[in-house]
Amino acid sequence: MGIKLVRFEHQGTNKWGVVDGENVKVLNNSSKTLAKFLENGQAEARDVLNNDTLQTVALSEVTLLSPVTKPAKIVCQGANYSTHRAEAGMEAKRPPFNMIFGKANSSLTGAYDTVVSPEHVKLLDYEIELGLVIGKDITEETAVTDDNLHEYLAGLVVANDISARDVQLVQGQWLKGKSYRTFCPTGPYLYLLDKEDIPNIHNLELKLWVNDEIRQEANTEQLLFKPAETIAELSGVMDFDKGDMILSGTTGGVALNLTPELLATVSNPTIDANQRLEVLIEAQSKSNRYLKDGDVIRTSIKSADGTIDLGEQKNKVQAPALVSSKA
Amino acid sequence: MGIKLVRFEHQGTNKWGVVDGENVKVLNNSSKTLAKFLENGQAEARDVLNNDTLQTVALSEVTLLSPVTKPAKIVCQGANYSTHRAEAGMEAKRPPFNMIFGKANSSLTGAYDTVVSPEHVKLLDYEIELGLVIGKDITEETAVTDDNLHEYLAGLVVANDISARDVQLVQGQWLKGKSYRTFCPTGPYLYLLDKEDIPNIHNLELKLWVNDEIRQEANTEQLLFKPAETIAELSGVMDFDKGDMILSGTTGGVALNLTPELLATVSNPTIDANQRLEVLIEAQSKSNRYLKDGDVIRTSIKSADGTIDLGEQKNKVQAPALVSSKA
Repeated sequence: MGIKLVRFEHQGTNKWGVVDGENVKVLNNSSKTLAKFLENGQAEARDVLNNDTLQTVALSEVTLLSPVTKPAKIVCQGANYSTHRAEAGMEAKRPPFNMIFGKANSSLTGAYDTVVSPEHVKLLDYEIELGLVIGKDITEETAVTDDNLHEYLAGLVVANDISARDVQLVQGQWLKGKSYRTFCPTGPYLYLLDKEDIPNIHNLELKLWVNDEIRQEANTEQLLFKPAETIAELSGVMDFDKGDMILSGTTGGVALNLTPELLATVSNPTIDANQRLEVLIEAQSKSNRYLKDGDVIRTSIKSADGTIDLGEQKNKVQAPALVSSKA
Repeated sequence: MGIKLVRFEHQGTNKWGVVDGENVKVLNNSSKTLAKFLENGQAEARDVLNNDTLQTVALSEVTLLSPVTKPAKIVCQGANYSTHRAEAGMEAKRPPFNMIFGKANSSLTGAYDTVVSPEHVKLLDYEIELGLVIGKDITEETAVTDDNLHEYLAGLVVANDISARDVQLVQGQWLKGKSYRTFCPTGPYLYLLDKEDIPNIHNLELKLWVNDEIRQEANTEQLLFKPAETIAELSGVMDFDKGDMILSGTTGGVALNLTPELLATVSNPTIDANQRLEVLIEAQSKSNRYLKDGDVIRTSIKSADGTIDLGEQKNKVQAPALVSSKA
């Protein structure tokens, strides 16, 4: 049975705790970063049920923070569900490569925080993703399979890979359009995994709603490149540190919707960028699915059998451009 | 007059020092990371000429390490010189956006270390770049101009953004093809800037040789998006920490050479990836400019007037695929 770890602010101090029903058991460990906590706080967190000396606070009295913290590196898998590949204009089937890009860790924000769009962003989109939190430093190519995955994966988390489609697609490289501050609501819990949980990571249900309308719904069994093979491959490319996060990609149902012809045009670096931006915005302007000021995004990830529950996010959208255009 | 900071290994210990002719003045500061050094070691480094108590070691007796260290974030500008844009199949003129992507910090290696190519890489390329090392934490959008650039920029460094063109271009997102371990020779010096040095950052001469044949030669006056405007723009996207590095892009003369038609085909995500890989390799197979096992890359960056000198790199290439194909 996994542990629901939270990082929270209470009476002016940031603390770590373990969710116990409607309460949080406050841990003594005071690590400033998730990396440090994974190093020296896990034992206390995992023993919390046997510890009667811990202070308890009501969940309703604390402000939850992203359990993933600086200096975590965020490495993202792109186009890793067939339904999302198809709606983005790509061939639906698993491609010959695992597409990988980065997202700045300053985009991390809490599960109930406001997502703030920069004024110049025109196409603001959502992407529910299962976040894989690394539990062990990796410094060389490593054979990772489901049999030893629990040694490399500390836990799981809900993440929303908020994306400025106009910046992301027209500029070609995705880092900028994915990295604005508040563009990565993460949490509420970091579910610390046990070995017995591993089979269940292939049977997690992802759901995302905008203003209570269901937009995304999928199961991690549909992931094209699975967690173990992805960590194994990436271990041959770069180092990972405890507390780094891999976002495993989003599923169908985002606002973005492109035909293959439009995708080819918008991605073509030999066509003038302003012209491509016009084509993209014209094609997407008929959609009423892009995020607007005041929208509320909710997300949830849990296993079909209920043993793994990563909690539910609720993030309001603040889009200054729309605010000022209404004024 | 700037200071040439080095990080080096001597008799089993990693240390910081300041280059003084053929010697290194060994600093007392023992910070494990560049971020910490910039916080608490700069004063000692800048006062080195007035300090007669420091130990001196011959440069020839130490092993130079990358002065940029973990946990530095590496953020790269793509296609930021017209000559490189043209050879890569793009319109040469400054585009409407500053293209930004990431590179894993585990690619960092020393200025004289071996660049090791993974076996599967077929098109191994070089890219000399001016590295901009951030000197101040940036957590909000900030007006940076040449007038206050010295407050945000700690120093300059030579970097070689080694690139696996087959992985980079066919997979679309560049992080993976740019991030393999040893793919970022950095140093030998971190030149700590003074305010008076700022005008000279627009007049630095970059040169790269392969086996003593000059391949790249440019001046930073040709940078399309300049350092100050780039830091200003990126400050509105993400946070920066002391010790992070922005690579400002490479100039013409790399091995990669594409017509606009080839670039459009190779970048088209609606064409099967294996087919695009074949097209790219077929088009590049006539070139004898790609890096081979045993090649030696040399790089240098210095100001025309000689006041700024970032030193010279010399890196041997180890390409296991070619080794084994010869065996």
